[in-house]
Amino acid sequence: MSKRTEISTLGEFGLIRHLTNDIKPQQPSTSKGVGDDCAVIELGVKSKEKGENCMLLTTDLLLEGIHFDLTYVPLKHLGYKAAMVNISDIYAMNGQPTQLTVSLGISKRFCVEDLEQLYEGIKLACQRHGVDIVGGDTSSSLTGLAISITCIGQAAKDDIVYRSGAKDTDLICVSGDLGAAYMGLQLLEREKAVFNQQNNEQQGAAEAQPDFQGKEYLLERQLKPEARGDILQKLREADIKPTSMIDISDGLSSELLHICHESHCGCSIYEERLPIDYQTSIQAEQFDLSPVTCALNGGEDYELLFTVALKDYERIAQIEGIHIIGRIEKEEIGAQLITRDGAEFPLQAQGWQHA
Amino acid sequence: MSKRTEISTLGEFGLIRHLTNDIKPQQPSTSKGVGDDCAVIELGVKSKEKGENCMLLTTDLLLEGIHFDLTYVPLKHLGYKAAMVNISDIYAMNGQPTQLTVSLGISKRFCVEDLEQLYEGIKLACQRHGVDIVGGDTSSSLTGLAISITCIGQAAKDDIVYRSGAKDTDLICVSGDLGAAYMGLQLLEREKAVFNQQNNEQQGAAEAQPDFQGKEYLLERQLKPEARGDILQKLREADIKPTSMIDISDGLSSELLHICHESHCGCSIYEERLPIDYQTSIQAEQFDLSPVTCALNGGEDYELLFTVALKDYERIAQIEGIHIIGRIEKEEIGAQLITRDGAEFPLQAQGWQHA
Repeated sequence: MSKRTEISTLGEFGLIRHLTNDIKPQQPSTSKGVGDDCAVIELGVKSKEKGENCMLLTTDLLLEGIHFDLTYVPLKHLGYKAAMVNISDIYAMNGQPTQLTVSLGISKRFCVEDLEQLYEGIKLACQRHGVDIVGGDTSSSLTGLAISITCIGQAAKDDIVYRSGAKDTDLICVSGDLGAAYMGLQLLEREKAVFNQQNNEQQGAAEAQPDFQGKEYLLERQLKPEARGDILQKLREADIKPTSMIDISDGLSSELLHICHESHCGCSIYEERLPIDYQTSIQAEQFDLSPVTCALNGGEDYELLFTVALKDYERIAQIEGIHIIGRIEKEEIGAQLITRDGAEFPLQAQGWQHA
Repeated sequence: MSKRTEISTLGEFGLIRHLTNDIKPQQPSTSKGVGDDCAVIELGVKSKEKGENCMLLTTDLLLEGIHFDLTYVPLKHLGYKAAMVNISDIYAMNGQPTQLTVSLGISKRFCVEDLEQLYEGIKLACQRHGVDIVGGDTSSSLTGLAISITCIGQAAKDDIVYRSGAKDTDLICVSGDLGAAYMGLQLLEREKAVFNQQNNEQQGAAEAQPDFQGKEYLLERQLKPEARGDILQKLREADIKPTSMIDISDGLSSELLHICHESHCGCSIYEERLPIDYQTSIQAEQFDLSPVTCALNGGEDYELLFTVALKDYERIAQIEGIHIIGRIEKEEIGAQLITRDGAEFPLQAQGWQHA
């Protein structure tokens, strides 16, 4: 009998590290491989001021039932979000997204009009961020929809921001607000449960329309996230280059731990400084959840989390839409949340759990 | 009721064209979008002799039950092949593959050792062709294994060969031999059927080991295809640049029709000139199949199909491993096979049929 190690013993990040840690680049152009938001490939072209031009490359595989639920996600929104999360990865390296390819696996229940909807969403997201769709292929699938998107971007080598550059005393910043996308998901999941129950109880009865009034923001954050290229623009205008950066897909805690791990540092963030929209707070309360937990672990906000040198404090504090939530510490301090009453809690990674 | 157009009414290639035909590039760097083996992106760097340097980009999504069957494909071979088919797409543009990313969707039945096997195959293929693995991510899947691979490569702009460059009187060439991968697939499918039947008839009886002696070549062609970078090297040494090129994944007929469609031309190929290995012929006969049909429509050979100018005849005829199988004609002639007895048959596309 051959050995069988369950994937759950390693977890998502452990698994990737395990499978790729013996890979040694052979190509001189490979500047950064596995382990950041994007791969970085040098193009062998020097610009006068900023060093070599580089290409950024990121890819995402989205599977029905795991990453999305078509019971409540319209295909157009799905396409939009699928493109946006890849575009967000390019921004998270301080790059400019330029091109994107789409591969689809399609089961029989989808028709041409469905795919038109999906593509409409992808095209809209691309248009907004100046990205060209340069490749597409489709094949059949036995089991629902599979979407694989690859996005490439460009950046001058000296402009690229990695996860690994955070230094002790740097300020930790986050754009926008946190936890709303997670609240949107909870709302949609609740309505799905109600809908399923009604269908079981009274077959053929008129469908109850969910009342989402006043919750539009939460739903939009879940269904139609917007990659924050505008924040990079503001940072450039203020002449600030982050020391490290990542986008928030798995949740603030998880992403902060990535930065700490790659930068060999610790961090302190302050509960009172976490940017949480009032709708998120109200909804969290209704669900009997802590808004802080939603902000820390909710995920899918697609905001930018980054660190800047302490000397940039004055300038960063003036930029609208950016919040300073804490500071980078020495590695031995660990990663911690400091509550309103001064208690310290270690941050926990969430990430992907094997189903 | 909203309109529902079945995907089968368009077919694979029709569907992609339908979804992407209104896409207009916004990025000046987008040189070639949807519709060839790779996308071509200009890097804004000029080399002295060969014009701008370009990046090539290709991506493939492989789904269990559609593109591979783990009953008879070892995971290591699957990894090898998954990488190789992408590497082959870069070669089909006359480019040099350089980097690759891997995304996996994994259902619960896979363990860490399984993924090690899969990665071992991917790494081996990459090593052989000097390609770096620069990105990897995994997530769970509800239904078997999903593999998405993106490969990038580089080429000088003037070296790139498209599907669209074939001209009347050009010679049609193919590397290696055709139909063997398809015969390998038939052998494996037959053994699977036998195995399943035995299992049904005598539960718990000793498994009959299939006898594949003398058929190793066919199995290797199916399980372990080799992308033909060596052929490009030979063409370069002979100072021949093909006028058009594609790799054979769907079958010779299908790929030739792509070249004719993109190049606005017709073609004649000769039955007697199709390179078919004797093992393929013997096996086809045993299966009561025509070896010629296997060569035309079998697919998965991953050989290069290309055209060269008539003036290159002397030089191309001398290169070992390359066969001249016909010539490009005017568009109005259509695409045809000329049999040994001089009869003409129109070539038929196979491609992907929606399940």
